[in-house]
Amino acid sequence: MVDALGVAVVGFGWMGRVHTQAYARVRHHYPHLALRPELITVAEEVPGRAEEAAAQFGFASATRDWREVAADPRVGAVSITAPNFLHREIAVAMAEAGKHIWIEKPVGLGADDARAVADAVTEAGVQGTVGFNYRNAPAVEAAHELITSGEIGTVTHVRIRLFSDYAAHPEGALTWRYERARGGSGVLGDLASHGVDLARFLLGDIASLTADTAVFVPERARPAGATAGHSRATGGELGPVENEDYVNCLLRFTSGARGVLEACRVSVGEQNNYGFEVHGTRGRCSGTSGG
Amino acid sequence: MVDALGVAVVGFGWMGRVHTQAYARVRHHYPHLALRPELITVAEEVPGRAEEAAAQFGFASATRDWREVAADPRVGAVSITAPNFLHREIAVAMAEAGKHIWIEKPVGLGADDARAVADAVTEAGVQGTVGFNYRNAPAVEAAHELITSGEIGTVTHVRIRLFSDYAAHPEGALTWRYERARGGSGVLGDLASHGVDLARFLLGDIASLTADTAVFVPERARPAGATAGHSRATGGELGPVENEDYVNCLLRFTSGARGVLEACRVSVGEQNNYGFEVHGTRGRCSGTSGG
Amino acid sequence: MVDALGVAVVGFGWMGRVHTQAYARVRHHYPHLALRPELITVAEEVPGRAEEAAAQFGFASATRDWREVAADPRVGAVSITAPNFLHREIAVAMAEAGKHIWIEKPVGLGADDARAVADAVTEAGVQGTVGFNYRNAPAVEAAHELITSGEIGTVTHVRIRLFSDYAAHPEGALTWRYERARGGSGVLGDLASHGVDLARFLLGDIASLTADTAVFVPERARPAGATAGHSRATGGELGPVENEDYVNCLLRFTSGARGVLEACRVSVGEQNNYGFEVHGTRGRCSGTSGG
Amino acid sequence: MVDALGVAVVGFGWMGRVHTQAYARVRHHYPHLALRPELITVAEEVPGRAEEAAAQFGFASATRDWREVAADPRVGAVSITAPNFLHREIAVAMAEAGKHIWIEKPVGLGADDARAVADAVTEAGVQGTVGFNYRNAPAVEAAHELITSGEIGTVTHVRIRLFSDYAAHPEGALTWRYERARGGSGVLGDLASHGVDLARFLLGDIASLTADTAVFVPERARPAGATAGHSRATGGELGPVENEDYVNCLLRFTSGARGVLEACRVSVGEQNNYGFEVHGTRGRCSGTSGG
Repeated sequence: MVDALGVAVVGFGWMGRVHTQAYARVRHHYPHLALRPELITVAEEVPGRAEEAAAQFGFASATRDWREVAADPRVGAVSITAPNFLHREIAVAMAEAGKHIWIEKPVGLGADDARAVADAVTEAGVQGTVGFNYRNAPAVEAAHELITSGEIGTVTHVRIRLFSDYAAHPEGALTWRYERARGGSGVLGDLASHGVDLARFLLGDIASLTADTAVFVPERARPAGATAGHSRATGGELGPVENEDYVNCLLRFTSGARGVLEACRVSVGEQNNYGFEVHGTRGRCSGTSGG
Repeated sequence: MVDALGVAVVGFGWMGRVHTQAYARVRHHYPHLALRPELITVAEEVPGRAEEAAAQFGFASATRDWREVAADPRVGAVSITAPNFLHREIAVAMAEAGKHIWIEKPVGLGADDARAVADAVTEAGVQGTVGFNYRNAPAVEAAHELITSGEIGTVTHVRIRLFSDYAAHPEGALTWRYERARGGSGVLGDLASHGVDLARFLLGDIASLTADTAVFVPERARPAGATAGHSRATGGELGPVENEDYVNCLLRFTSGARGVLEACRVSVGEQNNYGFEVHGTRGRCSGTSGG
Repeated sequence: MVDALGVAVVGFGWMGRVHTQAYARVRHHYPHLALRPELITVAEEVPGRAEEAAAQFGFASATRDWREVAADPRVGAVSITAPNFLHREIAVAMAEAGKHIWIEKPVGLGADDARAVADAVTEAGVQGTVGFNYRNAPAVEAAHELITSGEIGTVTHVRIRLFSDYAAHPEGALTWRYERARGGSGVLGDLASHGVDLARFLLGDIASLTADTAVFVPERARPAGATAGHSRATGGELGPVENEDYVNCLLRFTSGARGVLEACRVSVGEQNNYGFEVHGTRGRCSGTSGG
Repeated sequence: MVDALGVAVVGFGWMGRVHTQAYARVRHHYPHLALRPELITVAEEVPGRAEEAAAQFGFASATRDWREVAADPRVGAVSITAPNFLHREIAVAMAEAGKHIWIEKPVGLGADDARAVADAVTEAGVQGTVGFNYRNAPAVEAAHELITSGEIGTVTHVRIRLFSDYAAHPEGALTWRYERARGGSGVLGDLASHGVDLARFLLGDIASLTADTAVFVPERARPAGATAGHSRATGGELGPVENEDYVNCLLRFTSGARGVLEACRVSVGEQNNYGFEVHGTRGRCSGTSGG
């Protein structure tokens, strides 16, 4: 049996669960991997949740303190799936502790945070990767192949959309996501970042862009107690949504191609209406999910 | 039987044919019209084509000179479906002759021409309408009803696309369409104008916009002789395409809604990939044709 | 101008209207026809309706008695779009009067009627055609070309469906359509006949078949007065539906291909969900309308 | 941590792999299961393949002889994913050894085999289930809910299709699947069985049916050596395909509903074009996969 790589997950919300399942399943899809992930530990500050995750998925241990993960010699790689405002601190600490990191987007609250994490990874000589998983969607891989092989000719223009309803309900609680200080950007970091990654993956570098943003639900109710995910809050005191619900964008690629990118987190009834349409001088290709 | 209204068609290319069929069929769809169109005359300078049209569709007469139409007392209304650079002259003359006009877009080579035609129509006290026929597409009418009735809540954002392949073939001849002097704008006037009309019909006035344009096929071969429509030319001397193949655009509506608009005339394999997607706080609606 | 062929329409319900529009438009689509249809007369026994049709569509005259049409020397061809139980009598009379006929399906109440009409047409030496218009739908023509050219290999199996909601409402009145004596068969003649025609057009002769039928709405209310089309009747005395709402069928073609055919007139919410799927040893093709 | 249930997989082709992954993932989807599957052993007679499976998926041991599995006291439940002709022998042995079984369809070569397995399960007092996994597809579960809640009214008719291309290539080798002695039925057992299960799940018992079958690829080349799955064989001696490539079927349900069922294993280009359409007196629902 191949060697094991000890892995840990820091932050066990919806996304921590996704990373954990990925570790459990990766060898089902890639049987010839040189390493076998072994679920060492999971960190989550909500009381009891780390233990629950360990019981369900088979982590060897559980903790409420991510610093224990950094100190754990059994751990070789760490998934960082905590809230945005913790990304920088945790990621830098893990890199400095010599752990490879797989971090969720956005990498911190802004470009400064992302740069700091990238620098720490480089300096520590570890591997770092960001959760731009849409690159691996079969339709995206197929499109990439069609485009790079020249099958659709020279690419002329592209449309990329990411419409989600995760913030569509006006009674969705005013969680950290909607605050500049703890969430950073809004749909830009949450969804548009995937779109930009997709654009660059499929069409190459972006030379320039013009964008506009909008807030469509300007106020939400403050939650009574601690919340996680996208819970509802009614009757609470109203507070301002500080970051954008929507962004649209005109793109110019260095190749000369043009494009539009739209992302929205308040699209009613569209759980994951994501898609791309790439047009070239000899054909086009597109992919869609949900909608 | 109801009274007749004498109608004429000036310019008998593909679009002149469409207007003629519309006159022949309008009472099939609107049986209670107060007037019955009567096909009086058709003008087209290509030798023989007006006579052919008269034989096929039943016009009472045919001519190569549109001025005869302006002078014909039997004619009450005129369709102007000639090339763009003739729109202003013909339309002003018809209005001054007291004829109602139904003119194709774009109304001339630019805003000055359109303004001049509008002024002539007002001054003459005739009726004038532009061929923004997509307003009457059933899907558009249904969307308008959904939106104005509040069924989808407050509109937040819209996407409108108009992708066509009419100029997609790189060997398409360098006709008047690609010249500033005779065609005016490119896809802006040909397709994007429909999109702007649709946007205003569905979402109301546009407060501001930012747009970008591109030419994807910068040179085409000059045709050997006279051409009509979208014929091919190979071997001819190359000349520059002077107007845009593509436009993308960010929109802000006075209502606060946002949007993107894309139009392209060189979209390979998309004969008429037109569509709109309107998102609101309680739902969305969309329509598509071709694609 | 080409010679005229005087045409008449007998029975001016929804289908009579369709035939009339077809005459008015046929030269728009087939400019090189050797004859030009001229709308001579329309017969409809509902008082006033023939005159109304003449005013809207431009028939030269109107009558309540179809026998006048048979006697009219100006008439060269007749559309027979009256109720089913009149098909045989009118068609035989028209053929005997030397008129070409374009008759709607089903050609009478059963196979005997259809045979009698076919014999009369042959004997009189006139042209006769049945309203199997789906053969001319672009998707069907394209499929026919794909199949006959061998593009999809040897055809192995087919599915044809014709689902409509014209009798879906349980309060739809018990009109002549639901009676054996005046309507003959139910969905077999109305819709399945199109399917059988399509099957034979696309795959050739049918060697044998097994079918089953069902009545899903066994009773309907008798209408108070005269009715036309698919009006509603509530409160009326209930009477039995005498012919089938649904048919399904296994097909064996002489080519060895197999198939299923389904037709239903009580499919809620499916105005015209018609379609075919043809599978061959090298590919498949399909077409759909509505649904 | 919850108690473990030792599981084994007998036969490690494509389907054995699917069962193994299901055991590895079941707690990801059903966190509150009372038992936790533990991969004890895998049996596969192709040399080396069981060891490979153990290495990839983490079975504690591996064997070429399924009888060792029956004798293994650590094993509580067994997946039987061997070729059809072994189903009966293995399943009866496992039941008699007190193991619960999860067996793939068809349960043996015919109704006798299936009955024998069912009897053995009952007599041994173990649990037995057949791999009719489509019942758990989200679209099927949603349709079941819509139908049983009365949302679409009384069900009138249904269409179920299962079109696959696994035998579409005429050079696919003449494996055991095409022999009566080792494969039993053809597409009836492989795909139509899923359709019948789906029909009964959604609409209840079937009162009667009429079916037809066809062989579209009557001969295939015998493979040179041992084969697994759907390998190609060219140049080999031709032998007859003994079971059906295609079946179509008219259904009458005890509820009075009607239906058609089609299944085909030689549908070119349709990897898994499976679907159902259920029509009721107040609406319809449908689901599809692939196509």
